[in-house]
Amino acid sequence: MLGEMLIRETTEKDWDQIWPIFRQIVAAGDTYGYDVDIKEDDARSSWMQKPPGGTFVALDDRGHIVGTATVHPNQGGNGSHVANGSYMVSPARAGQGVGRALGEYSIDWARTHGYRAMQFNAVVETNERAVALWMSLGFEILTTVPAAFNHPDLGYVGLHIMHRTL
Amino acid sequence: MLGEMLIRETTEKDWDQIWPIFRQIVAAGDTYGYDVDIKEDDARSSWMQKPPGGTFVALDDRGHIVGTATVHPNQGGNGSHVANGSYMVSPARAGQGVGRALGEYSIDWARTHGYRAMQFNAVVETNERAVALWMSLGFEILTTVPAAFNHPDLGYVGLHIMHRTL
Repeated sequence: MLGEMLIRETTEKDWDQIWPIFRQIVAAGDTYGYDVDIKEDDARSSWMQKPPGGTFVALDDRGHIVGTATVHPNQGGNGSHVANGSYMVSPARAGQGVGRALGEYSIDWARTHGYRAMQFNAVVETNERAVALWMSLGFEILTTVPAAFNHPDLGYVGLHIMHRTL
Repeated sequence: MLGEMLIRETTEKDWDQIWPIFRQIVAAGDTYGYDVDIKEDDARSSWMQKPPGGTFVALDDRGHIVGTATVHPNQGGNGSHVANGSYMVSPARAGQGVGRALGEYSIDWARTHGYRAMQFNAVVETNERAVALWMSLGFEILTTVPAAFNHPDLGYVGLHIMHRTL
């Protein structure tokens, strides 16, 4: 699968293929702390990063966008050497290595662009696939903020804060 | 000291007294992850919250603003029941109970407005006065993100993530 996939930095016109993925994942409300009915303009401005951040897309062997990721400073100013990353994979392509490929690309990208560590602030603890992926890519769970996410099916669950140096 | 201090929600015209405090604290670069040369418009839009957030000021017995605080959701959507808080006290008024009064007011405000917990994402570990204040107000250190803040004098130091239920 990895051999057939291209990861690259995004261009403005990619948004039309990113938005359906973003909308579907956010509307489910079980993995991200966005408003489930977020407006497209707000989604675009949140996801399409400018330097020192970046936004990436994964394309399948037919050139269709099947996943996307962003990297940007987790804090400003004197905290801006720690990157935050966010990842979305088309639910139809789950379990095919798209998230892993985006993870590896974004880690390399962040390191190359001078970030010294990467931190995730809100990995829903019941999102077991994501947690396992990040552990396998060198992240550790620093803590779990108790009851910080109101899961639509499971009620209040914890949010993992995950971290790795670069 | 507390008896002489008024805490209230801010109005737009308070900004002219908030900005010198904000600018001085951020320019020092030792406690906040804002760009040390942040532009006034960016500072205002960051600090002056709209519902479901709030911004507060502390006034001394002559009606001068001596400190300010904000509360807003730490995450959006299904994470929006956890508040984030930020606090700034005029350096000339440090150690006089202004931060404590703002902390107590903001905790009560957040609880009254339906938040279930409060979380700080980035308390510089060398900011001992702040750490002690939050511990005394019921916060615990969930974790310390290693080397997440480049202190202008001390180099890379940790950022505490602090939390309490409401």
